[in-house]
Amino acid sequence: MITIWTYDFVPGGENGPRGFVRDLRLRWACEEAGLAYRIRTTPFEDRGPEHFARQPFGQVPFLDDGGLPIFESGACLLHLAKKSELLMPRDPAGAAETLQWTIAALNSIEMVSVPWMVLSWSEGPENGLAGWLDSRLTHLDAVLREREWIAAGRFTVADIMMADVLRQTRRADLPAYPNSHAYR
Amino acid sequence: MITIWTYDFVPGGENGPRGFVRDLRLRWACEEAGLAYRIRTTPFEDRGPEHFARQPFGQVPFLDDGGLPIFESGACLLHLAKKSELLMPRDPAGAAETLQWTIAALNSIEMVSVPWMVLSWSEGPENGLAGWLDSRLTHLDAVLREREWIAAGRFTVADIMMADVLRQTRRADLPAYPNSHAYR
Repeated sequence: MITIWTYDFVPGGENGPRGFVRDLRLRWACEEAGLAYRIRTTPFEDRGPEHFARQPFGQVPFLDDGGLPIFESGACLLHLAKKSELLMPRDPAGAAETLQWTIAALNSIEMVSVPWMVLSWSEGPENGLAGWLDSRLTHLDAVLREREWIAAGRFTVADIMMADVLRQTRRADLPAYPNSHAYR
Repeated sequence: MITIWTYDFVPGGENGPRGFVRDLRLRWACEEAGLAYRIRTTPFEDRGPEHFARQPFGQVPFLDDGGLPIFESGACLLHLAKKSELLMPRDPAGAAETLQWTIAALNSIEMVSVPWMVLSWSEGPENGLAGWLDSRLTHLDAVLREREWIAAGRFTVADIMMADVLRQTRRADLPAYPNSHAYR
């Protein structure tokens, strides 16, 4: 049995993370592949040693797959992808493309978009990372001009990751990025 | 044959990236596993459509594995890890732990450390991301207090990734992070 762990409570409000917790990525993958799963929650307030033993940075989600623990939403997605061809093609080229775009979502887009968002809370959207984020989104938009899915010509876990990263990036909604908007 | 693509020239100087290009991660993995590889270079200046066709964000490294192209250093490492048990254990728990810590290096540490470094160039080290980076490094240091290798009790690609991420993060050299320093 797959267990997805998330917080028992998530703050709302203008900058609150409610609706943007990364357990969505794992739930989406399980739903898409028809994998049975259950949800368990851990306290958001006063995270203790038990939480840090499962997720050393005090975050969620983390997964329990029949006793095998794993954290990091990207690692959980790639782990779940081993269970279903619906999440990742089995031919080497399709698998490599899915892997590369899953990582690109994490390390070429989210590595810029999340710190940009964090700075936005105190410094507004035109902060010191805005130009870098625009450059990354411009390159991504050029890729998405040519394709419906981000990898392997079909739906994969890379779409789950990239779509959720874009969903969390308000700047990707600008008119400068029409293909990213359509893709999302 | 594995071909690792990198730049033909990398600027030096105080903030120059010479010595910090991510092709090192791929070379290290190939050396460690005894995988035959060759190096090819692409111009650093005036990157054209040929480069963007291989790496849509205009970066390096990218890999060619017998005709199969793949970019993103994290994806390349996980791809190479399929070729040798020396890079990733084959038992499910060891494989999952290696995957999770490879992604954690990319998405829990580098997602903060690289934007912090970028902001440092214009705003100095005590910029708006310093507190967040310190929090991540503190949690990582607690993990490294208890272990010699980051995953699975042995050397894996997760060590290549985490050690290189820490090597590129000057703030990880602070006395507050003795275990990260010793690990690196």
